[in-house]
Amino acid sequence: MLINNQHYQTIWLKPDDNKVVQIIDQRLLPFEFKIVELQNIDDVYTAIKDMYVRGAPLIGATAALGIYLEVLRIAFNSDFQDQLLKAGEYLKSSRPTAVNLAFGVDHMIHTISNIDDPQERIHNALLQALTVVDNEIEYCKQIGEHGYPIIKEISERKNGKPVNILTHCNAGWLACIDYGTATAPIYLAHDKGIKVHVWVDETRPRNQGARLTAYELGQHGVPHTVIVDNAGGHLMQHGMVDMVIVGSDRTTSNGDVANKIGTYLKALSAYDNNIPFYVALPSSTIDWDLDDGISQIPIEERDADEVISMEGKTCTNIEKIQIVPDNTNVANYGFDVTPARLVTGLITEKGICKADKKSIYDLHNK
Amino acid sequence: MLINNQHYQTIWLKPDDNKVVQIIDQRLLPFEFKIVELQNIDDVYTAIKDMYVRGAPLIGATAALGIYLEVLRIAFNSDFQDQLLKAGEYLKSSRPTAVNLAFGVDHMIHTISNIDDPQERIHNALLQALTVVDNEIEYCKQIGEHGYPIIKEISERKNGKPVNILTHCNAGWLACIDYGTATAPIYLAHDKGIKVHVWVDETRPRNQGARLTAYELGQHGVPHTVIVDNAGGHLMQHGMVDMVIVGSDRTTSNGDVANKIGTYLKALSAYDNNIPFYVALPSSTIDWDLDDGISQIPIEERDADEVISMEGKTCTNIEKIQIVPDNTNVANYGFDVTPARLVTGLITEKGICKADKKSIYDLHNK
Repeated sequence: MLINNQHYQTIWLKPDDNKVVQIIDQRLLPFEFKIVELQNIDDVYTAIKDMYVRGAPLIGATAALGIYLEVLRIAFNSDFQDQLLKAGEYLKSSRPTAVNLAFGVDHMIHTISNIDDPQERIHNALLQALTVVDNEIEYCKQIGEHGYPIIKEISERKNGKPVNILTHCNAGWLACIDYGTATAPIYLAHDKGIKVHVWVDETRPRNQGARLTAYELGQHGVPHTVIVDNAGGHLMQHGMVDMVIVGSDRTTSNGDVANKIGTYLKALSAYDNNIPFYVALPSSTIDWDLDDGISQIPIEERDADEVISMEGKTCTNIEKIQIVPDNTNVANYGFDVTPARLVTGLITEKGICKADKKSIYDLHNK
Repeated sequence: MLINNQHYQTIWLKPDDNKVVQIIDQRLLPFEFKIVELQNIDDVYTAIKDMYVRGAPLIGATAALGIYLEVLRIAFNSDFQDQLLKAGEYLKSSRPTAVNLAFGVDHMIHTISNIDDPQERIHNALLQALTVVDNEIEYCKQIGEHGYPIIKEISERKNGKPVNILTHCNAGWLACIDYGTATAPIYLAHDKGIKVHVWVDETRPRNQGARLTAYELGQHGVPHTVIVDNAGGHLMQHGMVDMVIVGSDRTTSNGDVANKIGTYLKALSAYDNNIPFYVALPSSTIDWDLDDGISQIPIEERDADEVISMEGKTCTNIEKIQIVPDNTNVANYGFDVTPARLVTGLITEKGICKADKKSIYDLHNK
């Protein structure tokens, strides 16, 4: 994807030093574009926990490269296996809701921990991590190709009038490595000349929609309008939304979708107004062990300051303001769960399926 | 109600000069408490349009006093009736969604326009306006008394554990003259020793919940927690909300409720989780001419800047920041309509009724 007409990914190995990982510090976007270096597992932990990087696929890839950086440090140690396990637990604790993170980390550790040769450990960790990165890119590309016909069909039904697509939070390329999940079909449709217009939910408290989705759609030239999170229901009641596409942080085997807080409310409204509600996700986001999202998926509570304050641009710099009375209690749940009954379909790299156990298993050959 | 332990209304005649109206400039709350003087109809128009005052009952009372101020100016003119009609149209155009405004203004004009004696015109306009103010106070008090048993019953069912009440926007005393509509039952329950806890929706884009509802509940000592507008669905899914009470800017004769944008989403979620959803309103908010809120109630689009920027407190002053990328399109619909099928009951000064035509008519002896 493009930033100022130059191609970027959200994460990559430093070109002349493959012991360093580079990322875009997404906390500063859209006001400042800054590249940050991650030198060790603590840098990676902080980058994930404090949301320099966010989005399930990007978190997974960052953690994989974090394990690689740690293997660089511990490959020659006699207690390599113990330290590797500890590193895994440490990284998994940085964002408890993100299932990619846990799966990616466990998979890497499982593969590497039985290797005896230190150089082989390093070589394999790098290979595994880069495979995670490459796969995430390829999965997003395929999600785009599977989702594209849905937009095309709506466009044809509307005789080429713009297809209005509502999205929540940022499930764009900034949440992935490239293309994005929810945005991949949108970018592909736009690039193929289909008229699309995106309603971008602001997505309080961290405003990933207003800041990141608006930024990346703008950089790519896709028409879009930012709305407050409260507005989607009204738009849907008045025929101003043709479809909804969101991403997912974790989806259960029966199709319950954990995603950014507020997604459930948009799904209810889409259902109430007969508007298709799609979830785009790499299949690595599916948690095959769970089948009741509301009772089983732990929802992280995040720092109160995200609700109490807001950050933005004054005429001179980036500043933070307090937006509640002094000494106000706030609560900050990061995610909610949208029950499968409200989901029209899941779009994964394998294709599209209904949000029920059989369809999900069939599509993924389980 | 109390501010810093002193009793206030939101609007009153200046004690030593009854040709001047005084209000609290609610745009500065909770960061600054400032009283503003309204000297003429232009001041009143600005105060309503730019939301120095907001909330259906307070807007109605402000407009009534605005007509009185205009009558002071034109009472002796030969084209009194024409000018009075013009004044009415002018004030009604300041907030097109607020039905109280139109009704209150029309009622005053109807009463005054046939009076020939200038002094009598002035006397009558003042009397009418003060009656509007007194009635609004009394109606809110009665709404509190009618709504109180609902909270009491939940408290008893929970064996005295706190009753968790979610509210959206500010339908508190700051939206009225005193007591509030949605808050009146809450204040009464709290004052009678029932344990209540209020989930306060932030209410983007103007944050009337985070700023005003949190402020007034805090001043009165009612336990409360501010949440982002996205969070309510999650709380309801997890049994953390016992009831919802909101206000209304206009309710149709069949029980469709226009209220601050985002109310519909909370109603959907309450319905999906079997949580009672009540609307508290003075019956002057009922528009007897309408019976299909979604198609018939005009929804005002407000200034883009409300979405683009946010105002808050830095360590030194009140500052405004830009929270979207440069040159981003935004849309800003002020209200949405909650269909009657999602409303458990309406609480008016006359009592409680179901949100259907017959129940509403029966309660109001129509």
